[in-house]
Amino acid sequence: MSDTRIGIWLIGARGGVATTTILGLLGLAKQKIPAIGLVSELALFNDLALASWDRFVVGGHEIRRSSLYDEAKKLFQSSHVLDPELIENCRDDLAKIDECIRPGILFNSGSTIEQLAQEGQAHCPPAPRAAVEQLVEDLAAFRRDHQLHHVVVVNVASTEPPVDERTIPGTWDELSRQLDQAGQCPLRASSLYAIAAFEAGCSYVNFTPSLGSAAEALCQLALRRGQCHAGRDGKTGETLLKSVLAPMFAHRNLEVMSWVGHNIFGNMDGLVLDNPENKQSKVVSKDRLLREILGYAPQTLVSIEYIQSLGDWKTAWDHIHFRGFLGTPMVLQFIWQGCDSILAAPLVLDLVRFTERAARRGETGVLTWLASFFKSPMGVAEFDFHRQFQMLEAWATAVRQETPSACR
Amino acid sequence: MSDTRIGIWLIGARGGVATTTILGLLGLAKQKIPAIGLVSELALFNDLALASWDRFVVGGHEIRRSSLYDEAKKLFQSSHVLDPELIENCRDDLAKIDECIRPGILFNSGSTIEQLAQEGQAHCPPAPRAAVEQLVEDLAAFRRDHQLHHVVVVNVASTEPPVDERTIPGTWDELSRQLDQAGQCPLRASSLYAIAAFEAGCSYVNFTPSLGSAAEALCQLALRRGQCHAGRDGKTGETLLKSVLAPMFAHRNLEVMSWVGHNIFGNMDGLVLDNPENKQSKVVSKDRLLREILGYAPQTLVSIEYIQSLGDWKTAWDHIHFRGFLGTPMVLQFIWQGCDSILAAPLVLDLVRFTERAARRGETGVLTWLASFFKSPMGVAEFDFHRQFQMLEAWATAVRQETPSACR
Amino acid sequence: MSDTRIGIWLIGARGGVATTTILGLLGLAKQKIPAIGLVSELALFNDLALASWDRFVVGGHEIRRSSLYDEAKKLFQSSHVLDPELIENCRDDLAKIDECIRPGILFNSGSTIEQLAQEGQAHCPPAPRAAVEQLVEDLAAFRRDHQLHHVVVVNVASTEPPVDERTIPGTWDELSRQLDQAGQCPLRASSLYAIAAFEAGCSYVNFTPSLGSAAEALCQLALRRGQCHAGRDGKTGETLLKSVLAPMFAHRNLEVMSWVGHNIFGNMDGLVLDNPENKQSKVVSKDRLLREILGYAPQTLVSIEYIQSLGDWKTAWDHIHFRGFLGTPMVLQFIWQGCDSILAAPLVLDLVRFTERAARRGETGVLTWLASFFKSPMGVAEFDFHRQFQMLEAWATAVRQETPSACR
Amino acid sequence: MSDTRIGIWLIGARGGVATTTILGLLGLAKQKIPAIGLVSELALFNDLALASWDRFVVGGHEIRRSSLYDEAKKLFQSSHVLDPELIENCRDDLAKIDECIRPGILFNSGSTIEQLAQEGQAHCPPAPRAAVEQLVEDLAAFRRDHQLHHVVVVNVASTEPPVDERTIPGTWDELSRQLDQAGQCPLRASSLYAIAAFEAGCSYVNFTPSLGSAAEALCQLALRRGQCHAGRDGKTGETLLKSVLAPMFAHRNLEVMSWVGHNIFGNMDGLVLDNPENKQSKVVSKDRLLREILGYAPQTLVSIEYIQSLGDWKTAWDHIHFRGFLGTPMVLQFIWQGCDSILAAPLVLDLVRFTERAARRGETGVLTWLASFFKSPMGVAEFDFHRQFQMLEAWATAVRQETPSACR
Repeated sequence: MSDTRIGIWLIGARGGVATTTILGLLGLAKQKIPAIGLVSELALFNDLALASWDRFVVGGHEIRRSSLYDEAKKLFQSSHVLDPELIENCRDDLAKIDECIRPGILFNSGSTIEQLAQEGQAHCPPAPRAAVEQLVEDLAAFRRDHQLHHVVVVNVASTEPPVDERTIPGTWDELSRQLDQAGQCPLRASSLYAIAAFEAGCSYVNFTPSLGSAAEALCQLALRRGQCHAGRDGKTGETLLKSVLAPMFAHRNLEVMSWVGHNIFGNMDGLVLDNPENKQSKVVSKDRLLREILGYAPQTLVSIEYIQSLGDWKTAWDHIHFRGFLGTPMVLQFIWQGCDSILAAPLVLDLVRFTERAARRGETGVLTWLASFFKSPMGVAEFDFHRQFQMLEAWATAVRQETPSACR
Repeated sequence: MSDTRIGIWLIGARGGVATTTILGLLGLAKQKIPAIGLVSELALFNDLALASWDRFVVGGHEIRRSSLYDEAKKLFQSSHVLDPELIENCRDDLAKIDECIRPGILFNSGSTIEQLAQEGQAHCPPAPRAAVEQLVEDLAAFRRDHQLHHVVVVNVASTEPPVDERTIPGTWDELSRQLDQAGQCPLRASSLYAIAAFEAGCSYVNFTPSLGSAAEALCQLALRRGQCHAGRDGKTGETLLKSVLAPMFAHRNLEVMSWVGHNIFGNMDGLVLDNPENKQSKVVSKDRLLREILGYAPQTLVSIEYIQSLGDWKTAWDHIHFRGFLGTPMVLQFIWQGCDSILAAPLVLDLVRFTERAARRGETGVLTWLASFFKSPMGVAEFDFHRQFQMLEAWATAVRQETPSACR
Repeated sequence: MSDTRIGIWLIGARGGVATTTILGLLGLAKQKIPAIGLVSELALFNDLALASWDRFVVGGHEIRRSSLYDEAKKLFQSSHVLDPELIENCRDDLAKIDECIRPGILFNSGSTIEQLAQEGQAHCPPAPRAAVEQLVEDLAAFRRDHQLHHVVVVNVASTEPPVDERTIPGTWDELSRQLDQAGQCPLRASSLYAIAAFEAGCSYVNFTPSLGSAAEALCQLALRRGQCHAGRDGKTGETLLKSVLAPMFAHRNLEVMSWVGHNIFGNMDGLVLDNPENKQSKVVSKDRLLREILGYAPQTLVSIEYIQSLGDWKTAWDHIHFRGFLGTPMVLQFIWQGCDSILAAPLVLDLVRFTERAARRGETGVLTWLASFFKSPMGVAEFDFHRQFQMLEAWATAVRQETPSACR
Repeated sequence: MSDTRIGIWLIGARGGVATTTILGLLGLAKQKIPAIGLVSELALFNDLALASWDRFVVGGHEIRRSSLYDEAKKLFQSSHVLDPELIENCRDDLAKIDECIRPGILFNSGSTIEQLAQEGQAHCPPAPRAAVEQLVEDLAAFRRDHQLHHVVVVNVASTEPPVDERTIPGTWDELSRQLDQAGQCPLRASSLYAIAAFEAGCSYVNFTPSLGSAAEALCQLALRRGQCHAGRDGKTGETLLKSVLAPMFAHRNLEVMSWVGHNIFGNMDGLVLDNPENKQSKVVSKDRLLREILGYAPQTLVSIEYIQSLGDWKTAWDHIHFRGFLGTPMVLQFIWQGCDSILAAPLVLDLVRFTERAARRGETGVLTWLASFFKSPMGVAEFDFHRQFQMLEAWATAVRQETPSACR
């Protein structure tokens, strides 16, 4: 393991999350920043032979023109995050990574995302097959050029509108046939990227609420190609708190009467979610877990609003109205002021590291033990954060037992 | 089990927590209120042959003159809690319980508590032995008069000043000798009540931060007399949230830089805690768990202030300043608006039920699996609420296996 | 003045605001409650010969069947407000007032309000003229039966959908002609009530965002009939705070970048506003003042959501993102937890008292000096609460000078 | 006026407030920053011939060694404020100002402040007279070297412990005699600076809660020397909000039952206030206004706590418990997240500008019309922010009338 290199391929490679992920990875590799915020750096995961930070090479797809350096500066200016000194120190590295970023694809991506795309920077293939082939070729070239042992593809692009999943064929064979016909395929770009990842022998992680690899037909494809995948929708802020607090109400037999959550933020994700079509994907993803954890459905309301002045900072105000003994109503409110990219980026790196380790030990299919990272964990109905985390701990125990101590 | 009766003996029997506990128990026995807020009513504990609500008989010690009916009305007037209709419905039952309330004792209780005591309603014994004997006699009479199968003594009295535990002899034999000598015994009243409980063959639960049965010498006594006990300091609000939220920061490797908690409330507990001596017991109890859960000590600040207008309502504002990826500072704040007695009372009933069940199956010593109920759980260093709750679940599994289905 | 009686005629006479207004008035007349929350009871207004509380007689219109006693009990049960003892004490008085409540009218009231109406309790006149005549007759009967010196009509009914004011004729003569023709009149019920009030020689106060008397044609009518009126939309909570805080930002030259306000509540008003059509009236009323006070338009967002469990309690969370010196972004947040009816009712009584006094001294037309009571004050562009209050103080000074000291 | 230069002499010249004031002034003079946060830049004060930003020269006293450039960098690093680009641009200017900063004095300053002082950087004169003479000499040299038309001395140093004002002689003649005798003078350094300012023919502004020029004897001195002064304790955050919100409760006749304010912050001011002796000055300054505005004394609690991680950011949580109609309790809470230096610095610049203008038109004694800038305004009992602001507006009207339009 010691001299192999691993690829990270980011869909949406110059967005806020990707930019922060890349800058953070450079900082870690150069040992310029502490390992705060990284789950995989907990003592608990010490002996698992996870890949070290200097082994990673980054590339990706992007539909906008720009440069990572400019995007990093913009984040600093709009949101007072990222250390300007670190940005300057990494300027050359960022430029090198820019060279590994290829034009992305647009496919049923919805008008809001399409408006973001810039000429010459996005393919709009007539039929999905052509798009997938282009993506596979990009991934293969990346692997070849950098002599990579393995590549993990991570979707950190803008949220697509939801897909009516009933319109998607239930088997890969059926779905595969649709890829050849223009105007027939109900999938959106996020799923084409997932297909390309599997076809190119890569793992796939979906950090967004978009469909990605969540359809049954794509799960079949992953198994056939022997690849693993995980998702979806990174659990970074308000929903993380919900998955931590709701079990408390359940365990104390306190009846949640209503749970209102208002989210305001001003980054591009916010702009995209300002389109009700795209927002729908997110709200659904944020809302289900209360029902699952509590065992009943309190009145809930989740709003997500674009407030430009906030930049990459997200403020969530949650008002939880609950009844206790003798029917007495009480209130818990919380206010979460977090920086979206800063919260997401380390989880992206953790997911890459854990997924690569899983691939290395031969796991295929959905990595359900990564549930604690996601708002809508694939393949598992566990929403309680602490139980989800215990799934990760159990996986670590298993891996530790099979890892020769020399490797640790 | 079906026709036996169980005693609940409350120390501080006309305080806000006791009054609410008693009214709630009557409401449950009469099936006038839903089982909201009671942990022992979760489906999970269905098959454990816990005692049903109509089996309980209540008595207690109290140093103030008053009546339960008047105290209940006062709670309604000052704090807009408790249903006035239910209070009227239970007026006769409350009067009967008043007859089972005996004068309490004052012993090293501190000036604030001593000022609350009313003439003729509190014993101030010259030597502790006499006090203990009086208490044992009260408990024995209660048991005899009501033909009780078992009695659980619960301390819900005002918080005493802390005891320097180094001054307490390490064995029961040594401590026992001190009880005979006026002016020698470092214990305060809460511990004398615990001794009396064990000597009288009762279980003992300490719902307050006072020392109670937490000294090693008393643990020895409990084992010798074959009794079980649990404590201390019921975890009802802000600390409950800390024990739920701190593991999230730990699991996500987010560095808590400071955790500030301000608590304001206006009940008698608040008045007693307004004395810095008594407050000290509480603050210590609230502060340790962050260090234990996080594995390091962030700057913390816990303030508890008496604001008369709030009555029994406690508002806690917590400000958690943490660092994430790339050293970025972020903030979580929560505001908890809960009614103290309403939160505490169902836990008192749960503890009585669980403790009685433990006694029935022959457990002795500290019931560590009740940790999730306490700010400073005795006999265990686990502060993570979810892990504590799993200890309770594990106990339930064990009990369930030995409970004949007929009994369930 | 000492033995004359004054009528209060409430549109929406059994709603939460009306019920609380009536119970409060009875409490004041019986001297059972303190004068807290009443502006007209400030020392500042002592010498104006305002009518004393025992001079008022109440009647009104209502489209729902029920009784004031039942509505008061419901408020206590759903929202833990109103003293149950006071309700019992006033039971007979409430029943007498119930006898003075006449069926209301529905006219372009929108589907949500129409669904609230109960058979036999609401007139749906074919042409507006008939409705107005019925209302005038009701008011005349009330005045005659109780030998009232003057009557103030107050609209506290549910909020209607907005009216396109461009469709309303600009003069009373034109508008008057439309009243005779079914299907031609763009007005809604709130304006017909206003017309009836003026025609019957009454003052009219619009406590809601509905149009009421705000159209130019109705202002003409008021002047012709020598009546005074005021409105609109009582300023009780979040908007009151906006009108108090926005001037601070202006005076300190702090740039408000965004002001987000989320309102949640669960009373009937909330239910009606859950219809987007009706909500529109409210949001417009809440949003204009920032622009007026600041002199520029920050990004604003006002949401109003119906959360059933909150009953009559309204929680508003406002997040104000502003820039200070050197472009530094800072944040002020506030959380307002107020009971809607409790906040509104005393203002209704104040408005009646001030309006009656104005009528007594011969004022006609819009009472602009009542601006501090309203979100959208009629006839004046002043939104700064403190300047609005100074208009009230100036009026008081004028009245005081002309009030013989015997009368004071 | 057009080619005269004006001096700003800052006591505590390298503290956070001074550093920000200086950097901001440079930014304004270079037209690199917008005029946000500056009251004197409101349109309302356009025509008063206030001095333009490029006329000011800065010097000061300081007891710590360091450089303005380093202090500015530290502020950026600890608190994410101040633009690093601006700091670099102003590096030379900052160095020049450093040369005008003289060692300060320690005199009854209390142990916390004394610990901050660095050797060779602070005079500890045996008798106050010597100290005053040294300070006068420093001011005279500053004036001479830079050919200044006028100098305004501003105290932005750390808060001293309170002085028992009864021990201070009531006339300047008596007090003056004490200055010659070691061990007799009850004044602290802040007042010696004020004396020196007046003796040197300068204006004096006290931006801190320290006594400064607030004693009657010093007011006499100011008048004798024909100088003007203003103070004390800049109103930047929580108290500003109190002075804005309390009038709302008063005008609406809502009874404030309790007002709790918790302030946490981590700058040097916080460290100094962590000493209970020094904190006392601040708490008194923050607490009086509620009584004055409301006309009665609700239960209040103001806490100020040093939380290192917050740096220069101050978070205030205020919980206002009030009663409305029918005795109903309600709650307003606010959370203020502001950067202390950023809020203070523009007010310092405004005060200098207004004070210099007052001196230029011949005003002497306390400038009471500057009340809106201070927590404890000298010479006036008006605490309502809006009324205070109207005093400033009235002054502006008077000045405008006497200002020839050419000058404007």
